[in-house]
Amino acid sequence: MTEPSSWPNGASSPMTEDEARLLDAWWRAANYLSVGQIYLLDNPLLREPLTRDHVKPRLLGHWGTTPGLTFLYAHFNRAIKQRGLDALYITGPGHGGPGLVAASYLEGTYTETYPDIPPTVDGVQRLFKQFSFPGGIPSHVAPETPGSIHEGGELGYALSHAYGAIFDNPTQLAFAVVGDGEAETGPLATSWHSNKFVNTQTDGVVLPVLHLNGYKIANPTVLARIPEEELGALMRGYGHTPLFFTGGFDDEDHIACHLRFAGILDEALDMIAEIKSRPEGTDQPRPAWPMIVFRTPKGWTGPKTIDGKRTEDSWRSHQVPLASARDTDEHLQDLEDWLTSYRPEELFTDDGALKPEIAALAPEGTKRMSANPITNGGAVLKDLALPDFRQYAVDVPHPGGSINESTRVLGSWLRDVVKANPDNFRIFGPDETASNRLQDVYEVTSKQWNADYLPTDAEDDHLAPEGRVMEMLSEHQCQGWLEGYLLTGRHGLMSSYEAFIHIVDSMFNQHAKWLKVTNHIGWRRPVASLNYLLSSHVWRQDHNGFSHQDPGFIDHVVNKKAEIIRVYLPPDTNTLLSTFDHCLRSRQYVNVVVAGKQPNPNWLNIEEAVKHCTRGIGIWHWAGTEDDGDHPDVVLGCAGDIPTIEVLAAAQILREAVPELKVRVVNVVDLMRLQDEREHPHGLSAREFDNYFTSDRPVIFAYHGYPWLIHRLAYRHDVDSHFHVRGFKEEGTTTTPFDMLMRNDLDRFHLVMDVIDRVPSLGARYANLRQYMVDKRTIARAYAYEHGEDLPEVREWQWGDAGDMADRGQVDAALETGGDNA
Amino acid sequence: MTEPSSWPNGASSPMTEDEARLLDAWWRAANYLSVGQIYLLDNPLLREPLTRDHVKPRLLGHWGTTPGLTFLYAHFNRAIKQRGLDALYITGPGHGGPGLVAASYLEGTYTETYPDIPPTVDGVQRLFKQFSFPGGIPSHVAPETPGSIHEGGELGYALSHAYGAIFDNPTQLAFAVVGDGEAETGPLATSWHSNKFVNTQTDGVVLPVLHLNGYKIANPTVLARIPEEELGALMRGYGHTPLFFTGGFDDEDHIACHLRFAGILDEALDMIAEIKSRPEGTDQPRPAWPMIVFRTPKGWTGPKTIDGKRTEDSWRSHQVPLASARDTDEHLQDLEDWLTSYRPEELFTDDGALKPEIAALAPEGTKRMSANPITNGGAVLKDLALPDFRQYAVDVPHPGGSINESTRVLGSWLRDVVKANPDNFRIFGPDETASNRLQDVYEVTSKQWNADYLPTDAEDDHLAPEGRVMEMLSEHQCQGWLEGYLLTGRHGLMSSYEAFIHIVDSMFNQHAKWLKVTNHIGWRRPVASLNYLLSSHVWRQDHNGFSHQDPGFIDHVVNKKAEIIRVYLPPDTNTLLSTFDHCLRSRQYVNVVVAGKQPNPNWLNIEEAVKHCTRGIGIWHWAGTEDDGDHPDVVLGCAGDIPTIEVLAAAQILREAVPELKVRVVNVVDLMRLQDEREHPHGLSAREFDNYFTSDRPVIFAYHGYPWLIHRLAYRHDVDSHFHVRGFKEEGTTTTPFDMLMRNDLDRFHLVMDVIDRVPSLGARYANLRQYMVDKRTIARAYAYEHGEDLPEVREWQWGDAGDMADRGQVDAALETGGDNA
Repeated sequence: MTEPSSWPNGASSPMTEDEARLLDAWWRAANYLSVGQIYLLDNPLLREPLTRDHVKPRLLGHWGTTPGLTFLYAHFNRAIKQRGLDALYITGPGHGGPGLVAASYLEGTYTETYPDIPPTVDGVQRLFKQFSFPGGIPSHVAPETPGSIHEGGELGYALSHAYGAIFDNPTQLAFAVVGDGEAETGPLATSWHSNKFVNTQTDGVVLPVLHLNGYKIANPTVLARIPEEELGALMRGYGHTPLFFTGGFDDEDHIACHLRFAGILDEALDMIAEIKSRPEGTDQPRPAWPMIVFRTPKGWTGPKTIDGKRTEDSWRSHQVPLASARDTDEHLQDLEDWLTSYRPEELFTDDGALKPEIAALAPEGTKRMSANPITNGGAVLKDLALPDFRQYAVDVPHPGGSINESTRVLGSWLRDVVKANPDNFRIFGPDETASNRLQDVYEVTSKQWNADYLPTDAEDDHLAPEGRVMEMLSEHQCQGWLEGYLLTGRHGLMSSYEAFIHIVDSMFNQHAKWLKVTNHIGWRRPVASLNYLLSSHVWRQDHNGFSHQDPGFIDHVVNKKAEIIRVYLPPDTNTLLSTFDHCLRSRQYVNVVVAGKQPNPNWLNIEEAVKHCTRGIGIWHWAGTEDDGDHPDVVLGCAGDIPTIEVLAAAQILREAVPELKVRVVNVVDLMRLQDEREHPHGLSAREFDNYFTSDRPVIFAYHGYPWLIHRLAYRHDVDSHFHVRGFKEEGTTTTPFDMLMRNDLDRFHLVMDVIDRVPSLGARYANLRQYMVDKRTIARAYAYEHGEDLPEVREWQWGDAGDMADRGQVDAALETGGDNA
Repeated sequence: MTEPSSWPNGASSPMTEDEARLLDAWWRAANYLSVGQIYLLDNPLLREPLTRDHVKPRLLGHWGTTPGLTFLYAHFNRAIKQRGLDALYITGPGHGGPGLVAASYLEGTYTETYPDIPPTVDGVQRLFKQFSFPGGIPSHVAPETPGSIHEGGELGYALSHAYGAIFDNPTQLAFAVVGDGEAETGPLATSWHSNKFVNTQTDGVVLPVLHLNGYKIANPTVLARIPEEELGALMRGYGHTPLFFTGGFDDEDHIACHLRFAGILDEALDMIAEIKSRPEGTDQPRPAWPMIVFRTPKGWTGPKTIDGKRTEDSWRSHQVPLASARDTDEHLQDLEDWLTSYRPEELFTDDGALKPEIAALAPEGTKRMSANPITNGGAVLKDLALPDFRQYAVDVPHPGGSINESTRVLGSWLRDVVKANPDNFRIFGPDETASNRLQDVYEVTSKQWNADYLPTDAEDDHLAPEGRVMEMLSEHQCQGWLEGYLLTGRHGLMSSYEAFIHIVDSMFNQHAKWLKVTNHIGWRRPVASLNYLLSSHVWRQDHNGFSHQDPGFIDHVVNKKAEIIRVYLPPDTNTLLSTFDHCLRSRQYVNVVVAGKQPNPNWLNIEEAVKHCTRGIGIWHWAGTEDDGDHPDVVLGCAGDIPTIEVLAAAQILREAVPELKVRVVNVVDLMRLQDEREHPHGLSAREFDNYFTSDRPVIFAYHGYPWLIHRLAYRHDVDSHFHVRGFKEEGTTTTPFDMLMRNDLDRFHLVMDVIDRVPSLGARYANLRQYMVDKRTIARAYAYEHGEDLPEVREWQWGDAGDMADRGQVDAALETGGDNA
């Protein structure tokens, strides 16, 4: 889809010693500024003797990884300039925040972004003070850091983010520095395989650099303690050509290090340029992209020893090696020696600016990695071209008058979204796109796959070297790719089984925090929302059993800031279409959409659906028995496709069996509507809330997930605790769909019992009806246990006259198959 | 610690063709029974022609991986018998549930466990019907499956579980079958590195088998589509010696397959025996343990094609290949042909039992993998020898009269727990054991490490080839190891940063589900609880910033069944000791303990602590101002170490500034006490609850985590919504500890403001006090922003007379360092 562009390949030449000296000066400047950020409150360029008062009272930060990061930054800059590359820098060891801040300051980007930090002595002082300081900036690489799309908090996603950034950016190079601590995490360990999903022509390139500095907080790292031959095999096994650099040990001369590393980096970039120059379309084997193993001492250039204990090249340099710099003369002297070892007087002008001949090492304008436009994704974001979802609407002659797999219809719309947006929209998921019924997208695209194709596998299901669908059996990988893709200004969605989206709970946390923070950073422009489509949900995993039944992701999500998160539970096909159109247009949110993939009745035609979704909540007068304006005796609330069916079935039973009871049915699409307007921008006022749910009548609420969430959301409104919520109470197994509902008391019969129990006037008079409901449940269970499927009356129940069904055969066929294919 | 025992090494001899024929018969029987489980309701041994009524109405299950699993099972059985091995079988591709059920049935274990499924024709019919049927058994390998410790739901943990099972079981062999779909997950990708953490002498052995059947739900797998040379490099890079078996393609004769595979398995087991026979104690390189790449067709022995589409060796055989067997004559015939292809008449006696000469292939008694005693861990569980925690108590002359890092004291007790239990207790954590202040354990043990030791690294921090502490920078790995360790009858705990424990949210879900299900399986004996120590918590991650601040794991946990989960927030050192002693004695729970690692005041002496923890909740009369039996004007509730400090500080301010106000302080250790007794076994009755919190006075509750959880837990009691909860409202950054509290309105000053706002009688009269509190906050923030640390008065505040401090120097020094080392 994306047109391949030619890879920039400016002339490169071996580094000269003079160049190495300049580059070394740049590196020293970056290291000096890094150490200064960690330790100094004042006297930033050491123009007077260092005293205790110049040292920060609380020393917070991480030195260990920083000098390696700045070394690489300097070398990448040389390469960018020589070759004219478009590059970004992914800092896996995000602890090295000071290094990246220093680099962007040396390049001028920091001052352009934050004019209160100018290239002056004062500016350096402010740069130092703000670091890891109240009211200042975080100690890690963070949204505040220009050029960053990767928070240095939780580890494991450097490569996934890097690949996400270069998909559909054919001329972009991502230098992805992977820490050897991070390399032990599961997500990172599998993310090396991303190279089987990248297209040589239409995507950019990731150059992974494994930063092997040997130690974590208190331990050596695994990859630093296996023989180099084994590590090489591992990298070749991951599909890379490893290039090894070991430098900085045994007092190796820094200039010599620079000359050697520049040669290795040139070799890697030449390999990349060669791969990129191969003619398209020929039947080429997957290239073994280069990667660099960069083995240097942890805390390189820092104190060799402190109090007689080895510090450089040791875990002791992980955080703040001289924690007592303010307290002991000896450590204060150590700090001064350390700082002066960088010879700041050679690096900065009298005014405190980096000397021009050193500054000239960096590229200019948007070629600076810290100013790469795609790292402020919102600034390059283009709106999606969205086909009118109304054109994909299903016909609903009357409520319940047709049947659809709602995600399948969504798939037909997504097919045309893919078609209309060939280079900035992708669908991610762990091998479940078709299982979740989005297979129509394969009419216009494929799953991108660059691993082997077997001669016998002409039947491989929609695999191609280029495609809009990304599937690998790792939720971590899919989420990481998508995050990288969104943060660089594109759009996408992730589809997953509902239960297993918990695998990325922590990744969601980090992304939500990123969005929250960027909402308050003026220069960060809004990016496209992260959209989850959770299908194969708890009520339709009866065949996979208890391990696959978990609706708790919503609970996890709502702990994050209201300004960030949105949760939708469209009850049928047309509402799903309307909801997803809304989500794909939105910015800076995490949208969670839960929708079943099984054949279910439709309730609303497209105009009704749009209205209902716009309000997010609505009284379904046609389903209730109150006259207009009446005060109902009971409210049946519902949120979720399956609970909606059960509520409508219960309402039908009540209409027939208790004709004098005034029942109101309220359906909730936008879960955040249940909150108070003071707690969520979508929340209702007290009056609005009571208009839906009354202030005093019993509300029987059938909810898709854990019941407590409804109490939590409605807490401020439900002052009299008149809400009675049914949902998933962690009772599941392999059984029939209706038995799943019965095990959790969410079935229609139990809802009727709840009404009888909660409406005082009914209790005595309708004891028989209540018993009848109990019997119905007994019969339904017995039937299921005997026949292995649900009672026909339960399976076939639809709203209204069953004879009116749009297509009985369709329902029956769909129900017959038992549903799932996973 | 563990005494190495000699590895069993019975004589093995090459397989003869006759043996292969018998083994093939066993395999056919297992496959026949697997297919039968998926499809048949009746006519189990095909003793009459197959009709539609014999076929289940809903066909649920997964065929694709099953024949590979049964093939391996048969071969493992031969090896166990020949060599006298003690082995268990970890089924990574848990979808293949029918295969494992079939194997245990053929071995007799199934009938011993479930006497209603005898080895008769009737028994076979019941075996078939119950599978994936309402009231029956799950479709995956599950707790119900004899010999399983690994649920076949979420993928990724097969190797971690296997290693967990063989730690400290030096003669155990775990055959760990890894699916090639599962192999794409992050956790699995890093779990190969477990071999750097296993001790050759004192631990058992894992033999990984990568089951490369080529396809997932709808896609080929990555590892099946890279060149064999690359896959070999990957496995060697992971530290293994790969042995390759490819079989079953192009109609290869099954007997030939068996003969070839038996040779390869013998080679692997000979290598293991050789490694295990090496003399101890010599300075040996880490062995390159064997692993087997087992490439066979997906759905092997199933239909080659269905409706003209390739099915065997295709993703189409993933689930139920003949979904219409009940609906079309052709598919019914296909099913009958498939079943008869196993020649059941050669396999079963007239009575329906497996023929004795075939049954003889399996080992006997506890040598059967399905009857391995350690797979029912509770049955082999020994109580821990626990030193009396009272002996480790800290002196608390009066509340606030001493200062400790509570986890550090816990560490001194854990040291002696380790010492007293040298072979059945381990501590797991991602490189944070010392950071979380448990370093005293290193006085008696080390971190187990079998990767390289460098000559220059004499200073490696407590690494040794054998040790009780397991650290790898992967929460997944640590959790998986611990689960495997617990499920095979041992004890342990996992320590982690609070924020990043979300990484294992989904693993926790699966373990909690396992526990819930096993509670209702009589033959499964209770196992030791899974204990989490969450330190470096939200209120003391001010230096690492927002990405490290997340207290939501508790919220995630409480969605699971009340019978399984326990949450403790000990407010100080002695309560932490008492709590952990309780946790290490408990069974079948997940215990979450949140405790800070920074120096904090102690409130209770050990006797008070024991009483307080026994009750789980208590009125701290000494901290309040109500006379005995009085009705307080306001209740200050607290849960968590930091909120407790703030509440006590607020109480002190109120005592001095509003002497007439009757304040009650209630501290909650056991969070589940806040629930209603009908919802949690630890819950309070309405009367008890009101005895603590009153029924009508305002309750200002300072809580460690997200405030909503307190509302949720107290929902049934707090009918008048008199609870006003402060907690973490997702406001964080890099700042000072007290500024973190202020950002979330959890600080002492704000709590006093809350009291003034909520106690009607105070409002007007104490406007000045309220304003003074506002000013205090302004000053505190300004001070922090200026000086980079908190106001001295805030930093040094302790309960009671500050001059009484046990050791001022200790506090100051601890506060000076800024705290964390990570």
